[in-house]
Amino acid sequence: MNSAALETLIARRQSGYSLPAPFYLSPEVFDADCARIFGRHWIFVGVEPEIPKAGQFFTVEIGSDSIILVRDADMAVRAFHNVCRHRGARLCNPGSGAFVRLVCPYHQWTYNRRGELVNNKHMGEDFDRSQFALKPVHVESLAGLLFICLADTPPEDFAVMRAAMQAHIAPHDIANCKVAHQYDLVEQGNWKLTMENNRECYHCRANHPQLTASLYEYGFGFGASPDAHSKVQEFGELVKTEHARWEAAGLPSAEIERLDATTGFRSVRLPLNQSGESQTLDTKVACRKLLGTFTQSDLGGLSFWTQPNSWHHFMSDHIVSFSVWPLAAGRTLLRTRWLVHKDAQEGVDFDVEHLTAVWKATNDQDCALVARAHQGISSPAYLPGPYSAYTEDLVDTFCTWYLSHLQAP
Amino acid sequence: MNSAALETLIARRQSGYSLPAPFYLSPEVFDADCARIFGRHWIFVGVEPEIPKAGQFFTVEIGSDSIILVRDADMAVRAFHNVCRHRGARLCNPGSGAFVRLVCPYHQWTYNRRGELVNNKHMGEDFDRSQFALKPVHVESLAGLLFICLADTPPEDFAVMRAAMQAHIAPHDIANCKVAHQYDLVEQGNWKLTMENNRECYHCRANHPQLTASLYEYGFGFGASPDAHSKVQEFGELVKTEHARWEAAGLPSAEIERLDATTGFRSVRLPLNQSGESQTLDTKVACRKLLGTFTQSDLGGLSFWTQPNSWHHFMSDHIVSFSVWPLAAGRTLLRTRWLVHKDAQEGVDFDVEHLTAVWKATNDQDCALVARAHQGISSPAYLPGPYSAYTEDLVDTFCTWYLSHLQAP
Amino acid sequence: MNSAALETLIARRQSGYSLPAPFYLSPEVFDADCARIFGRHWIFVGVEPEIPKAGQFFTVEIGSDSIILVRDADMAVRAFHNVCRHRGARLCNPGSGAFVRLVCPYHQWTYNRRGELVNNKHMGEDFDRSQFALKPVHVESLAGLLFICLADTPPEDFAVMRAAMQAHIAPHDIANCKVAHQYDLVEQGNWKLTMENNRECYHCRANHPQLTASLYEYGFGFGASPDAHSKVQEFGELVKTEHARWEAAGLPSAEIERLDATTGFRSVRLPLNQSGESQTLDTKVACRKLLGTFTQSDLGGLSFWTQPNSWHHFMSDHIVSFSVWPLAAGRTLLRTRWLVHKDAQEGVDFDVEHLTAVWKATNDQDCALVARAHQGISSPAYLPGPYSAYTEDLVDTFCTWYLSHLQAP
Repeated sequence: MNSAALETLIARRQSGYSLPAPFYLSPEVFDADCARIFGRHWIFVGVEPEIPKAGQFFTVEIGSDSIILVRDADMAVRAFHNVCRHRGARLCNPGSGAFVRLVCPYHQWTYNRRGELVNNKHMGEDFDRSQFALKPVHVESLAGLLFICLADTPPEDFAVMRAAMQAHIAPHDIANCKVAHQYDLVEQGNWKLTMENNRECYHCRANHPQLTASLYEYGFGFGASPDAHSKVQEFGELVKTEHARWEAAGLPSAEIERLDATTGFRSVRLPLNQSGESQTLDTKVACRKLLGTFTQSDLGGLSFWTQPNSWHHFMSDHIVSFSVWPLAAGRTLLRTRWLVHKDAQEGVDFDVEHLTAVWKATNDQDCALVARAHQGISSPAYLPGPYSAYTEDLVDTFCTWYLSHLQAP
Repeated sequence: MNSAALETLIARRQSGYSLPAPFYLSPEVFDADCARIFGRHWIFVGVEPEIPKAGQFFTVEIGSDSIILVRDADMAVRAFHNVCRHRGARLCNPGSGAFVRLVCPYHQWTYNRRGELVNNKHMGEDFDRSQFALKPVHVESLAGLLFICLADTPPEDFAVMRAAMQAHIAPHDIANCKVAHQYDLVEQGNWKLTMENNRECYHCRANHPQLTASLYEYGFGFGASPDAHSKVQEFGELVKTEHARWEAAGLPSAEIERLDATTGFRSVRLPLNQSGESQTLDTKVACRKLLGTFTQSDLGGLSFWTQPNSWHHFMSDHIVSFSVWPLAAGRTLLRTRWLVHKDAQEGVDFDVEHLTAVWKATNDQDCALVARAHQGISSPAYLPGPYSAYTEDLVDTFCTWYLSHLQAP
Repeated sequence: MNSAALETLIARRQSGYSLPAPFYLSPEVFDADCARIFGRHWIFVGVEPEIPKAGQFFTVEIGSDSIILVRDADMAVRAFHNVCRHRGARLCNPGSGAFVRLVCPYHQWTYNRRGELVNNKHMGEDFDRSQFALKPVHVESLAGLLFICLADTPPEDFAVMRAAMQAHIAPHDIANCKVAHQYDLVEQGNWKLTMENNRECYHCRANHPQLTASLYEYGFGFGASPDAHSKVQEFGELVKTEHARWEAAGLPSAEIERLDATTGFRSVRLPLNQSGESQTLDTKVACRKLLGTFTQSDLGGLSFWTQPNSWHHFMSDHIVSFSVWPLAAGRTLLRTRWLVHKDAQEGVDFDVEHLTAVWKATNDQDCALVARAHQGISSPAYLPGPYSAYTEDLVDTFCTWYLSHLQAP
């Protein structure tokens, strides 16, 4: 889809309404999404504890691309396209592992952990290996959360997000965590439906009995809806009280909203319901060994949403981290990771089923809703509908951000 | 495919010959078929006995669209697009059921059986629900056969078909029938090949041993072929005699041919072979309880063909009804329903295997032939071939109808 | 893809480098490959021993086309498109069999083994059957290897290839062979990657332990690489000695290279390692009954490569013959046949597992490499890389041949 056609389509969108159907269905828009949204922004890809030791790597698959993230001898994380510079063979299979030298299985061209070509045969005396390093990818860590940018010149405002969020996330001490579980779910819908679903809790009460045991819906984009006025106010008071308590304990908690930035994000620490400890079925911590230097369990949940593709909840005992991966116009991968303290022992300090029950159930429920939305939007009868000004404000914000970056030159 | 390209393609067709390959293979022609043929004409979708009670509904899937047909409290059948007016979620899963209020699973927007939005939360005081009714679909019943039209302005000549056919079909009393069995078959070929296959019996003798036990091939588009001259004449005499007998018994039987109308159709009551009772393996009735007020078994078969997508055979004891659904350029759903008297008891009055054996076998045979035709037409070597003037006249008529409505503005 | 777009793409290719990504990935280039490469050249399809008797046939599927090759009563092999001239039905299912008359299953139009329409019903007195013969396909046999050309006017230089190769292949006496085994493998990569993989042995040592038991890599496109200089020279001496011995025994062995011809090919008889007898795990003959009138086992391997889609190795005891079939831009069928003397008895003279072990393993290994290359080339980060001047010269030759014939008018 050329820029002019895209402009015309973008102009068709009515503010406050869901997007016109081609944004969800068209393969051409999907290609534009991959190029202009995922190809130009900071994409959340994983967490540092996946590769704690030098030489460890994992791959990330995005569209038809594959990226290797590897920890170098200096303990920095580096990233490269997973493509041999000889005849283009994929170097590593998708997954994880470790290497000192990376040898292409086809003709044994050999690279080091900085992506430099260090050995190959039969290319003659005059062959200049320095011209054939693996193509690098920008990578940044925000307190242990790894982001890559596929563009040659990445957005500069990653630094703004880091400056704002470092102190919020640091107490949860990702460096001393481990990934206790990962859950991949392929949703039969456009990736933006997955994101929109995440940006409102209008749908929570009727669809998420497990999640709403601990989660107050009001923190997730709810304004003072006339249908829930007193409860929203009551929740506002609770937030005020709890923020005072947490800030006193050295935990930055106040809302930060920069969703209109190129590297758009939002964060707030919110109270949890009942025991107030964690996003579990019984609302109690899932892991006895708390994160960082925490001694209290009732720290609520620090939520951190990034654009275009992630959200994270940090609690006293565990972290749950989500990333969204477009696979096709109508297929999206939702990857969820649960992190606990690296010294916590499974079966002793935590139980994987207890740890993951709420979000596995919630993801499955959202997966069905996303598919249902995609099916309906596929009907020629679909018309964009109105967002609730009280509960779907952040959905509108997401769509507005998306459209403005889709049309950026 | 734009109209000009379609015009050029249509102009390539030589009368009396099968269609040029793109009509069967091209995804663009398929889209045009969906829009201009299935999107603008009266499509047969089912029978009233599927939803006898108020609140009962079934859905119809056509392309990426889904339609809900529901019986309202006033016992009228209404139809709507299965798409929530909020964010486009599909309301019902494909299938059937019953409701008083239809609640969208996503955010609980709630509709009544007239498609009116009667409840939703968080939309504020000023929200005008009357602007967000489900998008209606035109629906008509012809003596119990349900047809929908997706166009805003449906063809007016449904009334002509109803006037012509009501008296023919009424004695078979669909209102007091039930669906004894439904059989869905996905054919690996273009929907027009399924229709063309239905419009001639040139292929019957060599391919349909079960069907030709009861069916004389000569009634199905056979002219006085030199290769079957005396048999066709003999059959013509039999038809004359039987028509006189049936008309005397109050059953309109003469041929009606309006295949060139926008709502094109054809009908005739034809004798059956051997015992002359029914389209079964032994040619005897499959159900002991006869339809309507019939007391005689040997009423032949009233056939009713509609364009673009159905045909039906009405006998003294049961009705078999077929509809054709384009799924892709090379995939077509053939849905077959067998109806018997609603008071007939399975295992006592009829046996499902006996009832369905002929047409299940025949459909399976036709399915293989349609796939074979589609495969051959997919070859670059395919050239349109000549239709027999004696046995494929109705195939040519179908193609002519199709092309003239494909190019209609 | 129109010719201008193709020209632009072709112009992007840098000599000595792998092709730009669209040549491997684009469905439009794939269609051009089918039309301009496979649609215009001599394609190897099988061997005469598959249809030794009059009336025997086999079909070849190429794209959406199907071709019937049948042995006529005069023992000549004829070829036709597998498409009925009536309404286009596919006549035969893919596979093999025998017929005297070929009857279309749909409406019983009947053809003889020359493709002439000899019977059909209901077409009237004036119908001229001579206008409705099956569409013929050009077919040639080169010493028992069957080639077809789908173009109306096939390249004339098949005669050149026949004149050059007849004497080389004839001693292996294909006419008195039988197909002992056939192995079909669907590779997840573009057909040109399959061909490129076949045109170099740079990848052999690290990937093909079974093959390199008997095969010296140096015969397969290796120049005097500085990394293998002495071994290449040593191999050159061995070739010289062996050629003298084989030529004395009446076996033409010298290299013939006409890869730049329209009907491009290359051939050379090469020594095998260890016992020097055959391409088996133990390098000994797999079949005790030798081919033709051979009495010696150590005849090396006569290799014969054709463009665009085959290669063959002829040894004293068996022949292994490969053909490549494009299925989609990213899917390719590799069909392998092993031939032994027609009087050889399985279990007595040869064992299928021993006969096929090397090339089954090698094909599986190459299949993984082709998939890996296709995956990497699918990355937006892929850049064409440099071919080794010492080991990938024939890959470059293949690409050059391909591009020049892709742009031929």
